[in-house]
Amino acid sequence: MILTVTLNTALDITWGVDSLRPRTSHRVDTAYERAGGKGVNVARVLTALGHRPVATGLVGGPTGRLIREELRAAGVRQAFLDVAGDSRRTLAVVARDDGDATVFNGRGPYVGPAEWELFCRHYDLLLAADVRVAVLSGSLPPGLPADAYGRLIRTAAAAGVATVLDTSGPALVTALEAGPDVIKPNADELTAATGCDDLPAAAAALRALGARTVVASAGADGLHAITPEGTWRAAPPERLSGNPTGAGDACVAAIAAGLAAGAGWPDILRQAVALSAAAVPCPVAGDIDTAVHQRFLREATVEERVEETHAADAV
Amino acid sequence: MILTVTLNTALDITWGVDSLRPRTSHRVDTAYERAGGKGVNVARVLTALGHRPVATGLVGGPTGRLIREELRAAGVRQAFLDVAGDSRRTLAVVARDDGDATVFNGRGPYVGPAEWELFCRHYDLLLAADVRVAVLSGSLPPGLPADAYGRLIRTAAAAGVATVLDTSGPALVTALEAGPDVIKPNADELTAATGCDDLPAAAAALRALGARTVVASAGADGLHAITPEGTWRAAPPERLSGNPTGAGDACVAAIAAGLAAGAGWPDILRQAVALSAAAVPCPVAGDIDTAVHQRFLREATVEERVEETHAADAV
Repeated sequence: MILTVTLNTALDITWGVDSLRPRTSHRVDTAYERAGGKGVNVARVLTALGHRPVATGLVGGPTGRLIREELRAAGVRQAFLDVAGDSRRTLAVVARDDGDATVFNGRGPYVGPAEWELFCRHYDLLLAADVRVAVLSGSLPPGLPADAYGRLIRTAAAAGVATVLDTSGPALVTALEAGPDVIKPNADELTAATGCDDLPAAAAALRALGARTVVASAGADGLHAITPEGTWRAAPPERLSGNPTGAGDACVAAIAAGLAAGAGWPDILRQAVALSAAAVPCPVAGDIDTAVHQRFLREATVEERVEETHAADAV
Repeated sequence: MILTVTLNTALDITWGVDSLRPRTSHRVDTAYERAGGKGVNVARVLTALGHRPVATGLVGGPTGRLIREELRAAGVRQAFLDVAGDSRRTLAVVARDDGDATVFNGRGPYVGPAEWELFCRHYDLLLAADVRVAVLSGSLPPGLPADAYGRLIRTAAAAGVATVLDTSGPALVTALEAGPDVIKPNADELTAATGCDDLPAAAAALRALGARTVVASAGADGLHAITPEGTWRAAPPERLSGNPTGAGDACVAAIAAGLAAGAGWPDILRQAVALSAAAVPCPVAGDIDTAVHQRFLREATVEERVEETHAADAV
């Protein structure tokens, strides 16, 4: 079983307006909301693929109730822990005139030390329920220690559970020394974490800090993966236009599913490229275009980079 | 007792950001929410003044639950009817760099004919509970008939209850033939309803269509009132800077309180000017600055316009 952990779950709201004009009033003519947060999106993709993941993490307050209700309606298995604060909301205001989205992200509720301790015990119990891979995704809500992900990675390792970490900034850098099995930074996150804008070099640097495998995503250019078994580039056959926000979560879902099935890296990366691309035509994160998925599975390219593997091992 | 009716209640959310940049992502660093809709704001002002109004109207769904909870915590008496749809939200994004707000207004839930009939009976029962003035405020949610306010005005008149109507567009124009005791359009609403941008002439035109009294608000320039007893101009002693969004609701609260107490128009208009001004220094609608209120009560000017009264009577 795959367990997804979302410590800062969200209610993702999308509002449609004619045109966004700062400092004026707008009439919202379409409104749409669903449970979100990166780990929740991963659980949604895995559920759509026929896996039966369990989504855990922290939810709270009236917004937390809506998150739970929406996930129940969507058929995603859940085992969240309640906290006292209200879960955050995110809002994407989509303007019909240019199709562009302006996004507002709430910070999330304050989570106290007692709530965090309770979650760690809850997580430990969940890991014992036949979990093979734990996916740790997204930002940390206010109040959590900077090494929160490090602790979850160590607990998982002690239980023999592989971890896939998808976060950024201090939460990512601090967690590396705990030795996550896979991290999946995108180009911006790599640059922010390392100060280096050469993707393979920045990926190698994060691997040197403790990540066993780094799957770096370069958007429509595909993936660059440095693993203990070798270095690969995986690329889609073409660029798709659409909404890239769910592509990273779909990529993580593919990696988690591959690890849980014991697949090799070339197969995992092919799935990851195809599933990332299949998210792009869908307007909301967590959805997948099945036809794109199948076509890109056939047409994606995966090639080993022997010299880079040696260079990475020498870091 | 004063009854306020809000058919399209809202949860008013305020989010603070550093700067609003369309087509980018923003971190929300302050969040604030309270029950709203014009009638709810009127009830809040009346409650703050020591009246014990009852707020009625339609609420529904999870957002409706939050509206009820917030009003309960604020000590506002309420007798809302539940509908199946989810109450709307409004969002003001306030940018710290320029202090300006960009506002998004939800349309509100669809309200079906059976729900509307049920509300009309509920309202009829409430009117019998010693109500002297009914305040009818704000937009109509989708699904309600265009003459919804007309029906509520006729029911009130039959029960011997005075009505103050504060709405705009078709909902205002359609309701006039039912003969509301007072309407309170602002300059923009007058122009939209009549096509005429001369405030006294537009106010006289709406009176000719059925409103017994028109109290037209000209923002910081004060009020122009055409009543069966005469025509008055009332003006504040100075302009205040701040947030004008709650001023109209405070004005309506003063009119309703004056009518309920049997006050004369000069006294009502003095209160209306002072209370409108007292709303401006407050960041959220429904709040009042007591010191401004007391000072403006002493310093506001109210003068009768004898010639305009004759002209209005000749319309």
